[in-house]
Amino acid sequence: MTTFTQKSCFIILALIVSPSVLTTGASKFKAEKPCKRMMLYYHDKLFDGTEKDKANATSATVANASKLGESNFGMLVVFNDPITNDDEFHSPPVAKAQGFYFYDRKDTYTAWFAYTLVFNSSEHKGTLNIMGADLMTEKTRDLSVVGGTGDFFMARGIATFQTDTFQGAYYFRLKMDIKLYECY
Amino acid sequence: MTTFTQKSCFIILALIVSPSVLTTGASKFKAEKPCKRMMLYYHDKLFDGTEKDKANATSATVANASKLGESNFGMLVVFNDPITNDDEFHSPPVAKAQGFYFYDRKDTYTAWFAYTLVFNSSEHKGTLNIMGADLMTEKTRDLSVVGGTGDFFMARGIATFQTDTFQGAYYFRLKMDIKLYECY
Amino acid sequence: MTTFTQKSCFIILALIVSPSVLTTGASKFKAEKPCKRMMLYYHDKLFDGTEKDKANATSATVANASKLGESNFGMLVVFNDPITNDDEFHSPPVAKAQGFYFYDRKDTYTAWFAYTLVFNSSEHKGTLNIMGADLMTEKTRDLSVVGGTGDFFMARGIATFQTDTFQGAYYFRLKMDIKLYECY
Repeated sequence: MTTFTQKSCFIILALIVSPSVLTTGASKFKAEKPCKRMMLYYHDKLFDGTEKDKANATSATVANASKLGESNFGMLVVFNDPITNDDEFHSPPVAKAQGFYFYDRKDTYTAWFAYTLVFNSSEHKGTLNIMGADLMTEKTRDLSVVGGTGDFFMARGIATFQTDTFQGAYYFRLKMDIKLYECY
Repeated sequence: MTTFTQKSCFIILALIVSPSVLTTGASKFKAEKPCKRMMLYYHDKLFDGTEKDKANATSATVANASKLGESNFGMLVVFNDPITNDDEFHSPPVAKAQGFYFYDRKDTYTAWFAYTLVFNSSEHKGTLNIMGADLMTEKTRDLSVVGGTGDFFMARGIATFQTDTFQGAYYFRLKMDIKLYECY
Repeated sequence: MTTFTQKSCFIILALIVSPSVLTTGASKFKAEKPCKRMMLYYHDKLFDGTEKDKANATSATVANASKLGESNFGMLVVFNDPITNDDEFHSPPVAKAQGFYFYDRKDTYTAWFAYTLVFNSSEHKGTLNIMGADLMTEKTRDLSVVGGTGDFFMARGIATFQTDTFQGAYYFRLKMDIKLYECY
């Protein structure tokens, strides 16, 4: 009977404590489904250099495009862009995106982003740090959420970009589908 | 007999569930308390362009501020800054911070950093890679430690910045409280 | 009695194997040996500004070196560089490296990189995001793989650089030994 009971224990253990499960002392949560998901809109209004644009502009070119190719290769933009819950530029921002992007292809437009989502609302306080390639010719493209602070302490995940609109040289809007797969 | 069986269970558990470590091949350690903590001072001495400043300067502007706002929006600085254990610029550095920052707000000063702490001392060899927003108007602000190498193999954590002094345009000093929550 | 003992086991389990342990549904794999390894060659052909170089060039200077020191301090380059399985520039690329580097030392050459390896081949689809210091005077140097997408979903690891050749100002080649220690 002892033997039988021990076996039962083993089976229970084998079922519950299965592989990859024992590691954390902390309450870290890893998943194939996101432990947190947010659909956000990112608005970039590039400064056109005129006096009257200063109030509205949210980003500025800091290095001009090189002469390599015809698609702004090397053009570097620093931004402090509003993040909203819908696609309206003038909706109250739920976060700011602070960082930079540059264009990096000769024959078509692709870009590279690194930035911080800074949340300071009643809902969330904290930051998410994101970097990766924005392969603009793809319908959706994935960047990495590489860290977080505050409410997003130590988070990791994926930020999926989708172009929502591209209006000439001075305004574009992205949907950012933020999916965290590591939450503490 | 019940007692005996319970003990057996305990022993089995002790062997299998032990320090929450046994499943991975690696001894990765995650915690809510830091597994490693370092208080460091970061000194940035921006090159003023003069010949006599070349010996002392530790950083240089590579893109000038845009005309957007009055707080250096877009000004981009590359640095190779000494890291010391106290607040003396001339103390022997325990590491170098290699990377860049830029200012990214129209109406007040905020910055964004990405850099590597390069340790090459008797105490530590290796690097920590850090990125995030430096919301300079906050008393403290958190950036992400997104990776590490050498003694800090695969580390993750938080780097908390606190302004220690800001002396005009050409020298500032930060306290960097480095807290690692994932150590291997 | 068996029943009673099983219950005891359950209770013990419930106490010891508490919440944080059961959380992961994912098959995350951490190891001291890489769960994935790739040896890649990175070719950087810096645009020399001439018309005839436009077809071949893969990178361009976007901010010139500062006057601090004699080793290009602050020179910033954006790249879209081919990644090959061997050391031939004209071999079919297995990936592109999209990102930037800058030089960051006064008295000798060191650099700092942040970039995305973009795979779009029959073998791999997805990206790896990498950042860190390139201490060019060291035989090998380690950077951090801080995230991944697609086939490399949520990956982390180390990218070890080794200079393969350095041919004047306009071509260099690195061996990148990519070792992933966290795979999902």
